[in-house]
Amino acid sequence: MIDLLNTDEKPKDECGLFGIYGHNMDVATMTYYGLYALQHRGQESTGITVSDGKEFKNHKDMGLVGEVFNEKILAPLKGHLAIGHVRYSTVDSGLAVNTQPLDFRYLKGLISLAHNGSLINANEIRQRLALNGSVFQTTSDTEVIVKLIARYGQSSIEEALMKMMIDIKGAYSLLVMTEDQLIGVRDPHGVRPLCIGKKGKSYILASETCALDTVGAEFIRDVDPGEIVIIDNDGLRSIHAMKSSEQAFCIFEFVYLARPDSNFDGRNVTLVRRAMGRQLAQEYPIDADIVIPVPDSGVPAALGYAEASGIPYMEGLMKNRYIGRTFIKPTQKMRETAVRLKLNPIRDIIEGKRVVMVDDSVVRGTTSKQIVQMIRNAGAKEVHLMVSSPTVKYPCYYGIDTQERNQLIAVKQSIEEIREYIGADGLHFLSLEGMVEATGSSKDSFCAACFTGEYPLGISKRVGEYPMEQEVE
Amino acid sequence: MIDLLNTDEKPKDECGLFGIYGHNMDVATMTYYGLYALQHRGQESTGITVSDGKEFKNHKDMGLVGEVFNEKILAPLKGHLAIGHVRYSTVDSGLAVNTQPLDFRYLKGLISLAHNGSLINANEIRQRLALNGSVFQTTSDTEVIVKLIARYGQSSIEEALMKMMIDIKGAYSLLVMTEDQLIGVRDPHGVRPLCIGKKGKSYILASETCALDTVGAEFIRDVDPGEIVIIDNDGLRSIHAMKSSEQAFCIFEFVYLARPDSNFDGRNVTLVRRAMGRQLAQEYPIDADIVIPVPDSGVPAALGYAEASGIPYMEGLMKNRYIGRTFIKPTQKMRETAVRLKLNPIRDIIEGKRVVMVDDSVVRGTTSKQIVQMIRNAGAKEVHLMVSSPTVKYPCYYGIDTQERNQLIAVKQSIEEIREYIGADGLHFLSLEGMVEATGSSKDSFCAACFTGEYPLGISKRVGEYPMEQEVE
Amino acid sequence: MIDLLNTDEKPKDECGLFGIYGHNMDVATMTYYGLYALQHRGQESTGITVSDGKEFKNHKDMGLVGEVFNEKILAPLKGHLAIGHVRYSTVDSGLAVNTQPLDFRYLKGLISLAHNGSLINANEIRQRLALNGSVFQTTSDTEVIVKLIARYGQSSIEEALMKMMIDIKGAYSLLVMTEDQLIGVRDPHGVRPLCIGKKGKSYILASETCALDTVGAEFIRDVDPGEIVIIDNDGLRSIHAMKSSEQAFCIFEFVYLARPDSNFDGRNVTLVRRAMGRQLAQEYPIDADIVIPVPDSGVPAALGYAEASGIPYMEGLMKNRYIGRTFIKPTQKMRETAVRLKLNPIRDIIEGKRVVMVDDSVVRGTTSKQIVQMIRNAGAKEVHLMVSSPTVKYPCYYGIDTQERNQLIAVKQSIEEIREYIGADGLHFLSLEGMVEATGSSKDSFCAACFTGEYPLGISKRVGEYPMEQEVE
Amino acid sequence: MIDLLNTDEKPKDECGLFGIYGHNMDVATMTYYGLYALQHRGQESTGITVSDGKEFKNHKDMGLVGEVFNEKILAPLKGHLAIGHVRYSTVDSGLAVNTQPLDFRYLKGLISLAHNGSLINANEIRQRLALNGSVFQTTSDTEVIVKLIARYGQSSIEEALMKMMIDIKGAYSLLVMTEDQLIGVRDPHGVRPLCIGKKGKSYILASETCALDTVGAEFIRDVDPGEIVIIDNDGLRSIHAMKSSEQAFCIFEFVYLARPDSNFDGRNVTLVRRAMGRQLAQEYPIDADIVIPVPDSGVPAALGYAEASGIPYMEGLMKNRYIGRTFIKPTQKMRETAVRLKLNPIRDIIEGKRVVMVDDSVVRGTTSKQIVQMIRNAGAKEVHLMVSSPTVKYPCYYGIDTQERNQLIAVKQSIEEIREYIGADGLHFLSLEGMVEATGSSKDSFCAACFTGEYPLGISKRVGEYPMEQEVE
Repeated sequence: MIDLLNTDEKPKDECGLFGIYGHNMDVATMTYYGLYALQHRGQESTGITVSDGKEFKNHKDMGLVGEVFNEKILAPLKGHLAIGHVRYSTVDSGLAVNTQPLDFRYLKGLISLAHNGSLINANEIRQRLALNGSVFQTTSDTEVIVKLIARYGQSSIEEALMKMMIDIKGAYSLLVMTEDQLIGVRDPHGVRPLCIGKKGKSYILASETCALDTVGAEFIRDVDPGEIVIIDNDGLRSIHAMKSSEQAFCIFEFVYLARPDSNFDGRNVTLVRRAMGRQLAQEYPIDADIVIPVPDSGVPAALGYAEASGIPYMEGLMKNRYIGRTFIKPTQKMRETAVRLKLNPIRDIIEGKRVVMVDDSVVRGTTSKQIVQMIRNAGAKEVHLMVSSPTVKYPCYYGIDTQERNQLIAVKQSIEEIREYIGADGLHFLSLEGMVEATGSSKDSFCAACFTGEYPLGISKRVGEYPMEQEVE
Repeated sequence: MIDLLNTDEKPKDECGLFGIYGHNMDVATMTYYGLYALQHRGQESTGITVSDGKEFKNHKDMGLVGEVFNEKILAPLKGHLAIGHVRYSTVDSGLAVNTQPLDFRYLKGLISLAHNGSLINANEIRQRLALNGSVFQTTSDTEVIVKLIARYGQSSIEEALMKMMIDIKGAYSLLVMTEDQLIGVRDPHGVRPLCIGKKGKSYILASETCALDTVGAEFIRDVDPGEIVIIDNDGLRSIHAMKSSEQAFCIFEFVYLARPDSNFDGRNVTLVRRAMGRQLAQEYPIDADIVIPVPDSGVPAALGYAEASGIPYMEGLMKNRYIGRTFIKPTQKMRETAVRLKLNPIRDIIEGKRVVMVDDSVVRGTTSKQIVQMIRNAGAKEVHLMVSSPTVKYPCYYGIDTQERNQLIAVKQSIEEIREYIGADGLHFLSLEGMVEATGSSKDSFCAACFTGEYPLGISKRVGEYPMEQEVE
Repeated sequence: MIDLLNTDEKPKDECGLFGIYGHNMDVATMTYYGLYALQHRGQESTGITVSDGKEFKNHKDMGLVGEVFNEKILAPLKGHLAIGHVRYSTVDSGLAVNTQPLDFRYLKGLISLAHNGSLINANEIRQRLALNGSVFQTTSDTEVIVKLIARYGQSSIEEALMKMMIDIKGAYSLLVMTEDQLIGVRDPHGVRPLCIGKKGKSYILASETCALDTVGAEFIRDVDPGEIVIIDNDGLRSIHAMKSSEQAFCIFEFVYLARPDSNFDGRNVTLVRRAMGRQLAQEYPIDADIVIPVPDSGVPAALGYAEASGIPYMEGLMKNRYIGRTFIKPTQKMRETAVRLKLNPIRDIIEGKRVVMVDDSVVRGTTSKQIVQMIRNAGAKEVHLMVSSPTVKYPCYYGIDTQERNQLIAVKQSIEEIREYIGADGLHFLSLEGMVEATGSSKDSFCAACFTGEYPLGISKRVGEYPMEQEVE
Repeated sequence: MIDLLNTDEKPKDECGLFGIYGHNMDVATMTYYGLYALQHRGQESTGITVSDGKEFKNHKDMGLVGEVFNEKILAPLKGHLAIGHVRYSTVDSGLAVNTQPLDFRYLKGLISLAHNGSLINANEIRQRLALNGSVFQTTSDTEVIVKLIARYGQSSIEEALMKMMIDIKGAYSLLVMTEDQLIGVRDPHGVRPLCIGKKGKSYILASETCALDTVGAEFIRDVDPGEIVIIDNDGLRSIHAMKSSEQAFCIFEFVYLARPDSNFDGRNVTLVRRAMGRQLAQEYPIDADIVIPVPDSGVPAALGYAEASGIPYMEGLMKNRYIGRTFIKPTQKMRETAVRLKLNPIRDIIEGKRVVMVDDSVVRGTTSKQIVQMIRNAGAKEVHLMVSSPTVKYPCYYGIDTQERNQLIAVKQSIEEIREYIGADGLHFLSLEGMVEATGSSKDSFCAACFTGEYPLGISKRVGEYPMEQEVE
């Protein structure tokens, strides 16, 4: 599905992490390239902290990786280990103070953190710390985590991390850097991804394998749920701190969030999406003339649908590649213009055809309605919207910014009512089983709470004393 | 094919034009949207001039449409007619003075010009004008054209344009605006495109039909070769000034330059490209496992090849959507990183496969070499590069920035030598006839000089007194 | 007097010129320093063009010298001669296209121009040129001048300049640069200043001697009215082209415009201003306790008044040195705050005192009113405003931006009425004779039209066909 | 004395504070104006935090007040109380994270701090806090102070502040803001200034009275040494927490740091400086022709010297008002050019004269040497440099950035040796007694440690565990 007119329907990608312990390389530039590959996980701010064994150097700002960094800015970031972060953030919190990594000095020296995920008991911990005299500058979970680590600062860093993991509940993949250690931590359920790569003698930790490919590193393995991975001059060692018996990897990474060329648990994302499309064709076979995707995210599933159904695949919607983040919103009168600026139907492909249009997910339904209308105006005889995931009915508490529950169209309306609303001749959502089947794993290895309402880690409670909104990281 | 590491192989898109004579609408914002749709035709600078019947207001700068304009800048550009321009320009000429439209005051009042194309006798005219006391601020053809018009300024604007057309030789689509007229001019051979649209009572002139779609206008017709179209408060009238008996529409617009959702002469670009792919499959049938495109421009031909050959179509190369115009170039050592930053092969798709890879054109061959290598490294058993156009052997003098002739790989090397250079198992170029066939028109309606060396309008000579480099507009 | 709240009362400084023909030096950086010294003559835009004997290189933009130029921008401006310009311009014309120097190519090669002054027959010439086919991009006199030179382009540059000088009427100091010549031209009446300096073998032309001091050059002499000075590799030669019998040097340069450390015709500006203050004390002796200046421009005259009267000089008004060009305007309610932001009275100095306050000129009177009020609020027993020039009653047509005539307070009101309006106990203006006396020259060597209405060069007429507003340069 | 070529000799102004508890006013804009008036106390960064009783809003950045803030940025800063800060900082620490005010959430809610001064036991406290689990993001004293307050967070804010004052040693004027309280704190010795103003029912706290004048507020009184002033909706109340028996107001505020129109302890700064000049004339009467100031800071003392000696006062050095913070440094060859860019002697005033030149202080002596040379080159017969303060021999530990001790010229050289070094015919420094006498107060009410080496508060020790450089605030 597309993000149309800034009234984005899509769940927001959360954050991306990249860390490297390098040997004879420019770690800041490597991190820059790694973050470039992870840009889809967060476009609002980015930062890099580098350590030379003694001191940290840091640069972070609002903006894309390519805007925030240049040669001149990277040049002084000398060192042999680095961590970097890309972040999506809400407008209100769009302040430099909230960008990551966060650097601190504590009892044992310097420490830098970058975080992907969301805690459910951050406010309880915050209150506990405040009673003990802590102050907070941000509303971020990351600051809570670092202050917990500092409280356990009399221990070694490994022990401090293990104690901290006992305190915090929720979804997190963390990169921690000290003067001379690069550490990766993944929550006991393994909700958010984190993987290990190697390039020569240098180790890399990254949210997705596409970042390893980009820097020419070899994929070693995923970090295990509950694992702490410590990389220093002696290489890599691991502590399996507190693995949960239940796995809960976010299935939405497969559906939409991750980059198509990444692999999770050995499965390639684009192939899983294509399998979802094939599954969709089996569940909802239809007599039609062409299959078209909603670009770009609907392409793999549309190819899968076409493959399984034998209906020809055509690119019937042209996406403008130059739509930037700033953009003059049209008046109501020019509403259609604005949609067409992003997405233009090709009449010569669509006219007179029975069209199957494939999208990866539908959240609020307003964009789908606009696109269906455009396809009709371009002369389609029929328009059937096929969605390669189930209906989204529940908010995410584990690091993804979905809409408020009352904006999720499937909460209040039946599929038939949604079909009428968007004006399609047919509307079908892939079954939960079909979606899981396409991943090749079993249902109990995933968190699919946004579809099912079953939250494997529980949900967060807001505590009275700290009424700050929690942010997605 | 992709533009890799700023060592762009692709012929550069030249310029894009958009003009509107509006009734009850915000013409500046309409032009902004139109230029957004034409952004692929020029990313270096852009400008808009608006007339309110008495005065011109203008804003132009280096940068993308979305960077140069915002609400605050557009707000004061009040009027009922406007012309806009997007432009590719070489680095050296990247000066505000060279951005278009160019506004002047002459004997009859105000005049603004925007130009797409290239003259072959600009320097001769320049010298002629200088002898008569003219001064020049730019090296652009546009300034030459406007000064010619001014020399004939005692005549009506139509007559001045007709006289000017007798003087100038070359390829040009022009938008001319006076205080209360919007005028379109296309050269007698019709090399560069220009079309007419209508939205309510308002008329629009644009380089491509995708711009008409974007602003919700209806396509009326292409401007004829040699035609002058004058739009004012009374509507549209036309003068067929000096049509050539030979048509010479640039076939490279179909091959690569134009946006897939545009139509020329009633033919949709993406369908023509798909037909080129089918044609390629007929000319070079091959036993392979998968067909993959070089994204984005190779996609339609790859789909056509897959369709005609029956070999499955897979998206085996992931393109990073966040690569901006500024970008830290990697050291030689990190060369592969840089390529993978833009384009990453998906091993799970490619490994163990005999791969047909489809690209739209090959100019220097260095990028092809890198991609073929990447595909091999990802485990392909065989890689066959199929190119949906013939070998490019001759520079363009009509408005496209091709490489210097000695950089065109096909000039010095045979196809077999190129195949060896890029390291492919097979390399095939679509035949001239096959390419033309796919357009559905006859060969003599096109300029295909970059493939054939037959220049229908002749080539430019540089004149001693004015040794300024000519620029593409 | 101060410029308060952007409702500047002061006649605007016009333009500043600096040119150098260098031997073994970095001419661009020298010009940068020279323009820095002339910044008071124009703060809106600046530019430098450099010639290396073959080509011009140019950089210009809106902003102060220190903002527009830096090492990186100056580095590529290699050459051995250069001209530079600082400019005041009205808001509407604040476009890069109007910044100077203006560079052109004409029949004989390259030419660059920078101009200080204003023509009175520019529109007539503009119309004459347009009839002959000329087009204009700007409303500036400079473009008219360069097009006239081009019309005479078959002649040598000296002859072309001499012919041009016959055509144009008005005030002008010009720098003209060809590939290998630096030329200075001053109008026959010598209205605007231009002087010659030498540093080693290198020659310099500049608007004021302070620029010579700054670059360490020796003052040689002023350029004579009507003189053309040509500097090339052979040194300096001069043509006295068309000297008028009447001199008309702008007396306002002495009153306010020029920098205190500059000399004109051998007279130091700050000493002349001090003499004006002494003269004022002789014309209007008063019984008072302290003399205070309106900083900064009123300081020399206040010192002169104190010296002649024997009344102690105190700095009773503190000027904020950090007020930049951008500035949040206060609401009406905070009006006084805004004034005090720029200028704060020191109560301990003023309270209980009879105050003589000296300013150099009064144009609209609104600022004077505010300052007098502030002085009273700070506890002054009496406030007498002494102005070291006569009442300004007539607009300038020769290169200074005075207010519209109906905004000049002295046009409609008597001195007594003005005194009442500004709320002073006394108000006195230096007599015309006293002002001239202080310069040490005779009245007929000056243009004092703004005070007398006697325009030695006539005034400009606006021509119907070219109703563009003329700008000050 | 002037700051020349960024090799500034002057002790750096430290920080400026402005806070307001407003009734029916735009407190953000008021703070903006107040900070504009205090800009001389810090030009590197600035920030404002506003409270609406529930939430804080903050904006801060590197740059001048006029650069960092504009209407658009101030508009959302709604509330009824605010604090603001201007800051000088060293280049290395030029990071947004170090700008003030610093905002935190602690047990009792929100708290914001702005600080002027320097602690001498910050590192000891830092270490103490770290042992207890604290982390630090900055090297600033302000963060130490806020963490101490939080440690005492179970107490009321007044009690927490009183406990904190027992812990910290050093010079500090503090503004503290909670959701609904504006609090001012001044250290027990009263080293740095802080005053109280009132505008209608609104209270203001500011570093200098010039800020009160600027916003149209009435001066109430200085905050007492050791006093805590709490302003809320009920008005102002005061706690005299821990006044020292010894006063130690920084005498350098009178000599150079403060703005001439400010008053401390009822004494006007410019009048004190003038008295210093008179004192200087009494201590060192000389037979000379003119007295000239080194602008701008030498002006009041020069006027005093002239008044007492009867020697005429002339402005013989012209200061360029347009030298910005960025500036192209000249090559060694053009060294003199660079000096003259900032300061140009007026030959017609100086030539043939015996010159007394008055400056406020001499630190390293290099600038004095350059200026004396310039005056000689302009033809002076004799040059006597008179300095209106004693020799600076000791570094400041209380909030001013003086040079390293080995750069203070008076440490190693006698006055006679300095005279020779700078090339003056005479060199005289005001006596300590003379300087104090001019203030009208007694010696024991001041800190004059930079002149005497007697540090009334002791000096700071660096602690091993926290080898971070302390910054001036």
